[in-house]
Amino acid sequence: MGSTSDLPIMQEAVEVLKGFDLEVEVDIVSAHRTPEKLFEYAKNAHTRGVGVIIAGAGGAAHLPGMIASLSPLPVIGVPVKSRNSIDGWDSVLSILQMPAGVPVATVALDGAKNAGILAAQILAASDKCLLDKVVLYKEGLKQKVIEGAASLKQE
Amino acid sequence: MGSTSDLPIMQEAVEVLKGFDLEVEVDIVSAHRTPEKLFEYAKNAHTRGVGVIIAGAGGAAHLPGMIASLSPLPVIGVPVKSRNSIDGWDSVLSILQMPAGVPVATVALDGAKNAGILAAQILAASDKCLLDKVVLYKEGLKQKVIEGAASLKQE
Amino acid sequence: MGSTSDLPIMQEAVEVLKGFDLEVEVDIVSAHRTPEKLFEYAKNAHTRGVGVIIAGAGGAAHLPGMIASLSPLPVIGVPVKSRNSIDGWDSVLSILQMPAGVPVATVALDGAKNAGILAAQILAASDKCLLDKVVLYKEGLKQKVIEGAASLKQE
Amino acid sequence: MGSTSDLPIMQEAVEVLKGFDLEVEVDIVSAHRTPEKLFEYAKNAHTRGVGVIIAGAGGAAHLPGMIASLSPLPVIGVPVKSRNSIDGWDSVLSILQMPAGVPVATVALDGAKNAGILAAQILAASDKCLLDKVVLYKEGLKQKVIEGAASLKQE
Amino acid sequence: MGSTSDLPIMQEAVEVLKGFDLEVEVDIVSAHRTPEKLFEYAKNAHTRGVGVIIAGAGGAAHLPGMIASLSPLPVIGVPVKSRNSIDGWDSVLSILQMPAGVPVATVALDGAKNAGILAAQILAASDKCLLDKVVLYKEGLKQKVIEGAASLKQE
Amino acid sequence: MGSTSDLPIMQEAVEVLKGFDLEVEVDIVSAHRTPEKLFEYAKNAHTRGVGVIIAGAGGAAHLPGMIASLSPLPVIGVPVKSRNSIDGWDSVLSILQMPAGVPVATVALDGAKNAGILAAQILAASDKCLLDKVVLYKEGLKQKVIEGAASLKQE
Amino acid sequence: MGSTSDLPIMQEAVEVLKGFDLEVEVDIVSAHRTPEKLFEYAKNAHTRGVGVIIAGAGGAAHLPGMIASLSPLPVIGVPVKSRNSIDGWDSVLSILQMPAGVPVATVALDGAKNAGILAAQILAASDKCLLDKVVLYKEGLKQKVIEGAASLKQE
Amino acid sequence: MGSTSDLPIMQEAVEVLKGFDLEVEVDIVSAHRTPEKLFEYAKNAHTRGVGVIIAGAGGAAHLPGMIASLSPLPVIGVPVKSRNSIDGWDSVLSILQMPAGVPVATVALDGAKNAGILAAQILAASDKCLLDKVVLYKEGLKQKVIEGAASLKQE
Repeated sequence: MGSTSDLPIMQEAVEVLKGFDLEVEVDIVSAHRTPEKLFEYAKNAHTRGVGVIIAGAGGAAHLPGMIASLSPLPVIGVPVKSRNSIDGWDSVLSILQMPAGVPVATVALDGAKNAGILAAQILAASDKCLLDKVVLYKEGLKQKVIEGAASLKQE
Repeated sequence: MGSTSDLPIMQEAVEVLKGFDLEVEVDIVSAHRTPEKLFEYAKNAHTRGVGVIIAGAGGAAHLPGMIASLSPLPVIGVPVKSRNSIDGWDSVLSILQMPAGVPVATVALDGAKNAGILAAQILAASDKCLLDKVVLYKEGLKQKVIEGAASLKQE
Repeated sequence: MGSTSDLPIMQEAVEVLKGFDLEVEVDIVSAHRTPEKLFEYAKNAHTRGVGVIIAGAGGAAHLPGMIASLSPLPVIGVPVKSRNSIDGWDSVLSILQMPAGVPVATVALDGAKNAGILAAQILAASDKCLLDKVVLYKEGLKQKVIEGAASLKQE
Repeated sequence: MGSTSDLPIMQEAVEVLKGFDLEVEVDIVSAHRTPEKLFEYAKNAHTRGVGVIIAGAGGAAHLPGMIASLSPLPVIGVPVKSRNSIDGWDSVLSILQMPAGVPVATVALDGAKNAGILAAQILAASDKCLLDKVVLYKEGLKQKVIEGAASLKQE
Repeated sequence: MGSTSDLPIMQEAVEVLKGFDLEVEVDIVSAHRTPEKLFEYAKNAHTRGVGVIIAGAGGAAHLPGMIASLSPLPVIGVPVKSRNSIDGWDSVLSILQMPAGVPVATVALDGAKNAGILAAQILAASDKCLLDKVVLYKEGLKQKVIEGAASLKQE
Repeated sequence: MGSTSDLPIMQEAVEVLKGFDLEVEVDIVSAHRTPEKLFEYAKNAHTRGVGVIIAGAGGAAHLPGMIASLSPLPVIGVPVKSRNSIDGWDSVLSILQMPAGVPVATVALDGAKNAGILAAQILAASDKCLLDKVVLYKEGLKQKVIEGAASLKQE
Repeated sequence: MGSTSDLPIMQEAVEVLKGFDLEVEVDIVSAHRTPEKLFEYAKNAHTRGVGVIIAGAGGAAHLPGMIASLSPLPVIGVPVKSRNSIDGWDSVLSILQMPAGVPVATVALDGAKNAGILAAQILAASDKCLLDKVVLYKEGLKQKVIEGAASLKQE
Repeated sequence: MGSTSDLPIMQEAVEVLKGFDLEVEVDIVSAHRTPEKLFEYAKNAHTRGVGVIIAGAGGAAHLPGMIASLSPLPVIGVPVKSRNSIDGWDSVLSILQMPAGVPVATVALDGAKNAGILAAQILAASDKCLLDKVVLYKEGLKQKVIEGAASLKQE
């Protein structure tokens, strides 16, 4: 993520990934304040065994796109609604509207939880056991809705 | 994709994927006009060996999200700027703003080419040879810019 | 509705309908978390004697449109301004901008009360007594404004 | 509709309704230029046997809402993207965002075809034969998609 | 104004007008809930000696435009940011984007104070004494800024 | 107006005013390119017998607001959708959202015709004969709609 | 700045500039309430030795653009999200969308801090020592991120 | 600029600068396709004697912001309305909404001409002769408006 202020949002991705028993590396890399660290991080991540990169940032959010320009790995971008954001539109458009050739897999505004799930789904492409966990996870979502509906009926 | 009218846009994804020597299955599945086909398609794709699903749709674009709700596979959503769209905002928001639990990896408006590249990057997670092709592809993008800059200098 | 979190808003529709002495069935059906339940519910509602379906959802709100794709009944959509919504635009556009062939009768953001009134108006098409109640209801709205104006004059 | 310039769009509703063998009355009633006609029309429509009113208008589109304020019938509003419209947002919001008590069943921008289908669905509430036609109509939509998909496969 | 909930905003117009020693008539006329009162009010205002009409409303705000369609007087519209408004855009566009032939003099969102000043400026067209008061009022605005600047310098 | 490129739009206001037999003065005064002329023009207009000022401008449209800050006369602002405008939003918001104390009577995007009518309505406040012309003008609008409706019926 | 209410935001620019040991002059000049002061200020600033002007304003923010029209100096505009602003869009567009010939260097919404840094960068064009301070300042930003990342690692 | 497709727009900046007899270096540096070139270019520009950097880009436009993060020089950003842009909003917000610490002097959408003028104004801070040219340039703008107004009068 680009700043410690993004941590409360991005933490949701960490928790989801840990729930899938996946190894997570959390770091702060600012596209605008530590561009050298960004370069080094993004250029080498795939050689260090990283499988997917989740990048969250707010405002004119350049972190996800710049990582995508430097790494061959799939990059998931989380638009964060930061303090001076114009209702989140700036982060959403800065991350989503990447030019042809350099995709960022963008999730909803403040959607770090979905970023975690998407990362698990990507890694599950080559991990049958993980795919089963994703199927179970989705089953769990369904159960919660069914229980909610049931308790509504009882009222 | 949801309609034959999306084909000119979505064709760009097909071409990118073929360029990476990946097998592609193209079909029209409308969330709103053929919901049963959508169900059957999405529920079974992962058992048939499909690795990633790219879904493009315009307007109130429900196809990517509904596939994501039915399949454990990573789903890439392409917002298409259809004829009666309100400048594309409807497709973008209908695909991007998925609720927690059901992510769609959204790319730019009419960004089918990037959807193809992202799919390749996802499949490359377990395919070293494909990862090398992605690295080469990015190298090609760079060369084109450098040539453009060179020809500019000569003018 | 798609989630228990939509209940405070959607409850207004229930109350309006009960005020018109109409029978109401309340259930939670999530397009994204319980797609099978959605299918079963929407495909069979008209055979069970349901006359109108009111569907409320937030964010990338696919519930009203998916029900409309599966049922021949008129479907009223209520865009709900959910927690991570981008000011409600996502729900409004996901529900309103349905493709040709599959209409959703969309009401204002968080406009569940109007959804209830509209449902009564639709059922009144074949129920002269209900139509009279709708006329009376509108008369009541007028009286409240006139009383408000009168108390203003007295100040 | 509010102006002859809305006719090309609104004609689609007429055609759909005629396809369902429904009687259609077409008239131009401008909320802003012929307010007296609007009053007379809206106040009496339900006593003349009209079942549903479809009102299309562009810009600051007040016609659907004003009819809804004067008639107990269900009113379907079609936002029309008129010449000086700000990308259609003005018509959409002027029609959709009605205050509590006075609903307008809003369809997509320029979505007159869906307005016609919705009107048929509303009238079908008390007409089993019409409901069967709606079911058939939806079946027809499905067939067209399936044929489109089939011809795609053959290419 | 269209509702008692608009009173806190619209009160600012009343105060400005009273400050200019102008006679003010305050009433609640809802375009959607009391359309007959709206008709009667708007059709007769100019025969009763009213010089300018200020109309404030929120959401799908039809009051200013409908009065303008029924009265030859200049109508000033105040978009009010009501409770379920989409950030005020709905009121602004519903009032501003009037079709050719029926103008509404629109002021800023919640800009009732400016509506009062504008009304005074309009009436001053034929009242030299009132024009002098407007000149004085503007002088007063200037003084306040100059005092603010002076106190800033002293800090 | 601020530029000769605004002339095609602003010409509509001139024609309306001439239709009401009102005297019109047309000039180009650019807030950003000829600020001194703007100052002189706006400060003296009311002493020269001008009754209402219509100011049209595009993009970051400061002309109407700056005239309003310098003149006690009512100022009508016409947002013009200029070449590099962001869909007209910039002109609309730059003219409409004036601070408390300095109103601009804003009309619709490219709504110069309405600016002319509004100016006539303002001047009619002290001119019974002009008010009658405004009433006649509105009657003419009505006739045109009625004729349109009649020719539709005959088809 | 245009109003004392902008002071809390604009103060951040003052502090940054003082941190660079630059001389700062703070004043309140309202484009709409004190246009004469604006004229005098802007026309003479460059002859008094001022190097850069930072202008902050909200709503229909004309101050930065009007100063830019009157002064040959570089003008930095700070859009301020004022009380009745429509989410800040009005200030942003009123400042950013200046016509060809009269640029305003616009920074982010409420971005007064960046306005201060940009002013320092502009003055550093002819001041090697100041340029070194800018380089140091950026180094400081980097250190803070690195420390944040380090403390995150220790948790 | 980020792509040869931005050249027609950016060329206007080049012409303005040449008109001021300033030395211009034109290059294509893509933030997303040639990130290494971007790094090298931005890190060294100030040591090579470059005084101001103008960066134009469209869509998720990261070039201006990334240069600003790597260089102590003032960076002027030109949002370009590229082919798949969502009406230019993506470029505007990606360039304007930079986080605190890293300003980009943003000009209007497609406002390359103003970028050139602003660059001249910045360099004029330490070049009295250039400042005189800027004053003359502004005088020229005024003359053109005055001539336009004169020819209008003659018609």
